Amino acid sequence: MEGIRIKGVDDTLLALARERLDSLTKPQGSLGRLEEFAQRIVAITGNPMPHLFEKRAIFVFAGDHGVVDEGVSLFPKEVTVQMVHNFLSGGAAINVLASHAGAEVVVVDIGVDHDFADEPGLIRRKVVRGTNNMRKGPAMTRDKATRTIETGIALAREYADRGYHLFGTGDMGIGNTTPSSAIASVMTGAPPADVTGKGTGISDDSLACKVTVIEDAIALNRPDPHDPLDVLAKVGGAEIGGIAGLILGAASLGIPVVIDGLISTAGAIIAWALEPAAADYMFAAHNSVEKGHRLMLERMGLEPILDMGLRLGEGTGAALAITLIEAGLRIYREMATFEEAGVSKELT
Amino acid sequence: MEGIRIKGVDDTLLALARERLDSLTKPQGSLGRLEEFAQRIVAITGNPMPHLFEKRAIFVFAGDHGVVDEGVSLFPKEVTVQMVHNFLSGGAAINVLASHAGAEVVVVDIGVDHDFADEPGLIRRKVVRGTNNMRKGPAMTRDKATRTIETGIALAREYADRGYHLFGTGDMGIGNTTPSSAIASVMTGAPPADVTGKGTGISDDSLACKVTVIEDAIALNRPDPHDPLDVLAKVGGAEIGGIAGLILGAASLGIPVVIDGLISTAGAIIAWALEPAAADYMFAAHNSVEKGHRLMLERMGLEPILDMGLRLGEGTGAALAITLIEAGLRIYREMATFEEAGVSKELT
Repeated sequence: MEGIRIKGVDDTLLALARERLDSLTKPQGSLGRLEEFAQRIVAITGNPMPHLFEKRAIFVFAGDHGVVDEGVSLFPKEVTVQMVHNFLSGGAAINVLASHAGAEVVVVDIGVDHDFADEPGLIRRKVVRGTNNMRKGPAMTRDKATRTIETGIALAREYADRGYHLFGTGDMGIGNTTPSSAIASVMTGAPPADVTGKGTGISDDSLACKVTVIEDAIALNRPDPHDPLDVLAKVGGAEIGGIAGLILGAASLGIPVVIDGLISTAGAIIAWALEPAAADYMFAAHNSVEKGHRLMLERMGLEPILDMGLRLGEGTGAALAITLIEAGLRIYREMATFEEAGVSKELT
Repeated sequence: MEGIRIKGVDDTLLALARERLDSLTKPQGSLGRLEEFAQRIVAITGNPMPHLFEKRAIFVFAGDHGVVDEGVSLFPKEVTVQMVHNFLSGGAAINVLASHAGAEVVVVDIGVDHDFADEPGLIRRKVVRGTNNMRKGPAMTRDKATRTIETGIALAREYADRGYHLFGTGDMGIGNTTPSSAIASVMTGAPPADVTGKGTGISDDSLACKVTVIEDAIALNRPDPHDPLDVLAKVGGAEIGGIAGLILGAASLGIPVVIDGLISTAGAIIAWALEPAAADYMFAAHNSVEKGHRLMLERMGLEPILDMGLRLGEGTGAALAITLIEAGLRIYREMATFEEAGVSKELT
């Protein structure tokens, strides 16, 4: 992307954080991944004693998908609009879990096939009014794909300016496991059958149909795996582009970003392919039941934090992971050292 | 145990909770284990709409172990006392993580080899002043073992009376992975080498020595796997008995109890062997790196919630898991139904 360059984190900060962690009253390394989270927050923020996350935002990018005409989802398309209203009135899972994680839910219309009025809380940044059916041609133009990413970058900058310093990603879009699995296939080289799951819970027959739709879309559009924008345009979606942009924006600003499930990870792999160092700023929230998800995480070298059988999206996994990442930071900041507590160190 | 009988939970309540979960605005089952947590809380509390956990307590039972004379730990024995002081002054990992989980830390001296003064916050219920070296004879008498369990039961009742309705278990005791692995071996039938890990981080040589110590202790004392009190007395520890009692007390009162790592699970398997229905009230917080832990969980039919490479104890894993269990309960209580939100259900 023009105007954005991501620098990897400074490894000397990882070592600095390790030194403090080893001075705390516990056997070295005994808090496992909590210690890793603390180290990474130090390196990402460039601050040897990072602040607690006072302001946190989970961005739910909403978009529609022409490919639902092919019968790939269990829910009708109008549910995207209905769920956007549910987010705005606070009744959805992400509202509950974001509140639990102390995070604000930021609802962004980036590609819903509906003209929303000026509703309180809704951020209107529509780039497309639903994508086109990728089985019949590209989901969107390259120009539109670029604009979805720019929209995400702009949001990251706006929220950073307003003092938010921890982001989570989320999505809403009936049918969006189909483009996400297509992206997983193209970007990892695995055949569609190996990266396609049942989404919200379709039958075995519908799954076979979904795999065929993805195979057809890839065969027809021939997305170039070395050109992430081409992949996003041809077999992606607006919310996936928004997520990719949010991640790039966060990374460019030294803000940690927690990646939700399959759809968010499809966005993450686009961001990573554009700027590989962006992975330094990502936390993989969880290992969903969707098959393509894990494969993309492996490709980026990310180890998921939770494994709870989630398959909802919206940013729900990111919300749960935030409480654990925060726990790692609190350990780093708040525990007593051996010296402070008068506790004997290991026998030597 | 005399005076305590545990009834399994009512399965019809699991089904009732499932009905509500399926009416909420998400694909059925898409929140995976969060939904399971909510179902189980309904069944455990016997309340179709359980209250949020206002008052939560994590009990850290502290005890010493004569077997440290055999060189099984990396830390000197006086660290148990030092860490009790660290808990009381708020500098330990469990203080930070319990605070993060909104839980109070309850520090119980049930078997430390030190005479504590009347220190603010310390609950003095000493049953033994450290156990005996189990390589040379039983760790404690059967009578003392019974009293450790009774102490845990009494604490559960006291805290229930004071309005606490979610418990977590924790431990402190230099050397206590050794009796815990011995219990794991006896109760699962696996040889000591298969259930013994490096505790706080001993070397390969020390691990081989630790395995031999456990083999010797079992050969000498011949604990009877069909008599859990015999196992606890001969190769257990005071804090393990306290944890077993707390779990039995919680289960008898319909209070969910979150089991921490290896040591807590050794207590849990003693409780389960005494009263198998107690497992209905347990949540297994995490899968620690200690080998015996997983095997005992499997024996009890418990699936760990987290897998974060933890090996600290103190109740730290329980604290982290509490935030996830609470998330499941909040989903159950707070999400909108399809009807309330005007969202279309699945296509049929």
